[in-house]
Amino acid sequence: MKIGVLGSGVVGQAIASALIEKGHSVMLGSRTARNEKTDLWVKENGARALQGRFADAAAYGELLFVALKGEHALDVIRGLDAAQTEGKTIVDITNPLDFSKGMPPQILEGLGNSTSLGEQVQALLPGSRVVKTLNTVNYKLMVNPVAVNGGDHNLFLCGDDADAKMQVKKLLADNFGWKPDLLIDLGSIQSARAIEAIVPFWVLIYRSLNSPLFNFKIVH
Amino acid sequence: MKIGVLGSGVVGQAIASALIEKGHSVMLGSRTARNEKTDLWVKENGARALQGRFADAAAYGELLFVALKGEHALDVIRGLDAAQTEGKTIVDITNPLDFSKGMPPQILEGLGNSTSLGEQVQALLPGSRVVKTLNTVNYKLMVNPVAVNGGDHNLFLCGDDADAKMQVKKLLADNFGWKPDLLIDLGSIQSARAIEAIVPFWVLIYRSLNSPLFNFKIVH
Repeated sequence: MKIGVLGSGVVGQAIASALIEKGHSVMLGSRTARNEKTDLWVKENGARALQGRFADAAAYGELLFVALKGEHALDVIRGLDAAQTEGKTIVDITNPLDFSKGMPPQILEGLGNSTSLGEQVQALLPGSRVVKTLNTVNYKLMVNPVAVNGGDHNLFLCGDDADAKMQVKKLLADNFGWKPDLLIDLGSIQSARAIEAIVPFWVLIYRSLNSPLFNFKIVH
Repeated sequence: MKIGVLGSGVVGQAIASALIEKGHSVMLGSRTARNEKTDLWVKENGARALQGRFADAAAYGELLFVALKGEHALDVIRGLDAAQTEGKTIVDITNPLDFSKGMPPQILEGLGNSTSLGEQVQALLPGSRVVKTLNTVNYKLMVNPVAVNGGDHNLFLCGDDADAKMQVKKLLADNFGWKPDLLIDLGSIQSARAIEAIVPFWVLIYRSLNSPLFNFKIVH
């Protein structure tokens, strides 16, 4: 499958490399058509690794990942041609974190409580099918859940389109090894508010354990 | 020990009854010196069960629980004589939830992100030692953690006073059965922001499971 990954930081690269390993062709999108970092990534990941501007990656992928820093995410999304994302599933991993006021981070002004990045991405690209997920785990765990507790922990997702959520569940299971029955559907994209809001708490746990390799397991 | 519980709803009553069962004397505080609900509670809980106004319970207890609705909590705390809480450990269970705008609840205006109920209670009663905890589990689980997964799940606490946190850990272990090594200290009372912020997420999980009898277990 042709997949576009918007964001060439550690998260975007981890996602993109894992997808290439599974046989997908991936375009890593960044601000510039190419740069030192994406050049290196392409070189290391072989023939199915492509690079381009954010808009190029959005046009290229049949399915998209959004792995941008929260503070830049909506500017990048506004810069896309919404028609290029029509009908496409978008996996939104962004977190609206503001680290400028110390630890734990706050939620970026205007992006907590009554809205969320997930909802805003969906609103800016109304023809797409946004699924919020993966934002509650470290990037190493996103693509290799078995690294913690044998993979026995939960990932949460939400979105307005049931088919897109099914597609993303299958993608997470087939490519990254998430156990399908441990993926918890929390409803419409509005639930992104609550899913994004737990990330400052995640940061406190990280600080307490002194390791990002942990996750939440719901026991009942 | 003499304990004051501020709040006579299901949470306050569950805490108070469990403490009486363990041999403590408990005054349940409410708006009125007595009412039908607290009369009944006193009748059902024997000689060590007392009732009074919020201020009476605050004066009575050597240690206090605050189990008020988030929307009323700070008004009640402002109504106390701060001198009566001097040096006392206060276990704050409150959640700043606003259910008026639909589900999941939002965080009450002005009580998210850059402050929290925990911090506000500490600021209003500066001589006391506030420990935020228990607010992330259902009231039945608060006093009986073994009801879920044999008690193998986590509870979080924070506060500025290390001795008070030790005291609360011991109290939770000795009276309610929380396993000490599953109690995670997340730092100063400022961490109440993040701990309170996960409750809308808790509500989504509750909705998904259709049961409040669950908890988070950190796996690593």
